[in-house]
Amino acid sequence: MQKIEVCFSPLLYPLYENPDAIVVVVDILRATSSIITAFHNGVEKLIPVRTVEEARTYKNKGYLIAAERDGRILDFADFGNSPDNFTPDKISGKTVVYSTTNGTQAIRMAGKHHQVLVGGFLNISAITEYLISGRRNVLILCAAWKNKFSLEDSVFAGALTDKLLKTGKFHSICDSAIAARDLWLLAKPNLISYIDKAANRHRLKKLGLDNVIEYCHTQDVTDIIPVLDKDLLVPLKKM
Amino acid sequence: MQKIEVCFSPLLYPLYENPDAIVVVVDILRATSSIITAFHNGVEKLIPVRTVEEARTYKNKGYLIAAERDGRILDFADFGNSPDNFTPDKISGKTVVYSTTNGTQAIRMAGKHHQVLVGGFLNISAITEYLISGRRNVLILCAAWKNKFSLEDSVFAGALTDKLLKTGKFHSICDSAIAARDLWLLAKPNLISYIDKAANRHRLKKLGLDNVIEYCHTQDVTDIIPVLDKDLLVPLKKM
Repeated sequence: MQKIEVCFSPLLYPLYENPDAIVVVVDILRATSSIITAFHNGVEKLIPVRTVEEARTYKNKGYLIAAERDGRILDFADFGNSPDNFTPDKISGKTVVYSTTNGTQAIRMAGKHHQVLVGGFLNISAITEYLISGRRNVLILCAAWKNKFSLEDSVFAGALTDKLLKTGKFHSICDSAIAARDLWLLAKPNLISYIDKAANRHRLKKLGLDNVIEYCHTQDVTDIIPVLDKDLLVPLKKM
Repeated sequence: MQKIEVCFSPLLYPLYENPDAIVVVVDILRATSSIITAFHNGVEKLIPVRTVEEARTYKNKGYLIAAERDGRILDFADFGNSPDNFTPDKISGKTVVYSTTNGTQAIRMAGKHHQVLVGGFLNISAITEYLISGRRNVLILCAAWKNKFSLEDSVFAGALTDKLLKTGKFHSICDSAIAARDLWLLAKPNLISYIDKAANRHRLKKLGLDNVIEYCHTQDVTDIIPVLDKDLLVPLKKM
């Protein structure tokens, strides 16, 4: 049986780290939802960077930059972090440098794992099928909000846990996975209304960025799975 | 309105730390349940210590020692960490040194707060009344299991959050508090059966220590609230 664990915060990541596992990084509002959308809309490569300084260095080299901190676009960036910024006309066939408050940090942190997938509701069935097809244990890493537990990331972790457990090929004795699954089952009948309670929802509303919330909670918009290949995000090649 | 926050792991504690707040430390299985029981059964003082070495130093000075690691009694200790070790004949009127895998670490860590209360289902109504009577914000700190999210501590945090929110004097925009409350509402109709899923429950069963699980989830066995007074735990004096 393959094992599922859920890590609620990057700060807790060292407790769960297991190089043999596949890690699914999730930042529903909005980094991983945006990354999935970018690949769906034809971006060739994304370069996830941790710091504003790194992003600026790339800017000076002529790269396209998508970068925010605390929901605000950095002054030198070409666009922000919302999925609706990544339209085909802007990004198709291009390489984009991407830096966010939480999501890209978590992706880079997970780099030591066997494989790092970028997950969200937008590609949840594709991710599920891929994980079922392998024999690896799975760690779902929530990007959280400045390392604090985040409701929407945890609910997604629960949705993925639920899908994997239902196959009968996975098991979990991880309290976080159990709690996340229960939160998902509670949220599922009316997901958007449930997520309305989340702190991040209010943060985005204040910034006028809450127009993407429903989209970010839509299942199976694409079957593309972005994966980390050394320091780059690229689409997973079909076997 | 007074604010409620929930911290799921001592590793996340620096993100929530707020010296003006009252912190309620919880380790349902078993440290805080045992501490509450000890005071209910007449212990005069408890000295919470973090390390095995500290406990040994106190032993050499002639103190009574209750100390375990990973559910196993240390060889030099007088008794273990289960609530049923703290019987009146052994501890009434005495000072006991207490060291556990998770709980006492969390208590000492919280020491910088305005006030540190030791909470559990055993004294949940007394804690609730005390917090209502004050005007402070509240942080519920889960001792967790070696810093990993723990189901039973989180469900208790949810129960306390629920009681406080119902008074109308408290509010919360903390995702952890919202999730914990939802887990409690799910668990409440059949608490022991819900907690049966928790990893700690299985850990204790393996060690033959699961006889105390039902007791540790019993509400309002006592109205005593242990508090941290400098480096000592003592009963809160009634106003």
